[in-house]
Amino acid sequence: MAENNIEEGLELMLQYEKRGGLLPVVAQDYATGDVLMLAYANEAGFQETWRTGYATFWSTSRNELWTKGKASGDLLRMREILVDCDQDALVYRVEVVGGGACHTKGADGRYRKTCFYRKVEGGNGLVFR
Amino acid sequence: MAENNIEEGLELMLQYEKRGGLLPVVAQDYATGDVLMLAYANEAGFQETWRTGYATFWSTSRNELWTKGKASGDLLRMREILVDCDQDALVYRVEVVGGGACHTKGADGRYRKTCFYRKVEGGNGLVFR
Repeated sequence: MAENNIEEGLELMLQYEKRGGLLPVVAQDYATGDVLMLAYANEAGFQETWRTGYATFWSTSRNELWTKGKASGDLLRMREILVDCDQDALVYRVEVVGGGACHTKGADGRYRKTCFYRKVEGGNGLVFR
Repeated sequence: MAENNIEEGLELMLQYEKRGGLLPVVAQDYATGDVLMLAYANEAGFQETWRTGYATFWSTSRNELWTKGKASGDLLRMREILVDCDQDALVYRVEVVGGGACHTKGADGRYRKTCFYRKVEGGNGLVFR
């Protein structure tokens, strides 16, 4: 049964077409477990990540392959790649090589380590963590 | 500047329309940092999550609001909700109330705690973690 192969099998069968060609990827700090960013991978991005050992995504704003930190040096070095039951989502467990994973800068003028630097408070408000 | 408000502001302005009405949501174990599952929220799901304190998603297979574990009792109790720089992705930091977050069962006959129970090995193969 195909569903069972996807869920219980040991063959990688990523379901790109189910998600319009792009799978959501959670980049997680291997050492701390912090969620660093949420990005997307197409098949070329996934293959490039595997080949090079550095997280490569598909930029949905620029519509191009995007090796995170290639320009800035803030690369995400791959430690392991996890796949979910439905094979339509990935977790990249990575080491942050440079300053941080986010393109925004904090009050100290440095790139923030994680893109998730705010939390919801009161329903419609945010606070910095 | 709108982009700066989204990135640095303290007003929740989730960018649903940018992602076709659905934002990816990372459910993360509050205690351990484990990534439990990747699901999607529309605005109704997000509001229901905030109102009830239990993770509620939009099921992309059934096309309906889906309070995780409502039938099985394996609810995900919300501890905090994180928002990313672009406000187009969420992290739900949760407590697993029941047996696990995944709908699949492990060798012990119990629901698996996380949907990410396999990792990529050798490029096209998977191993159980």
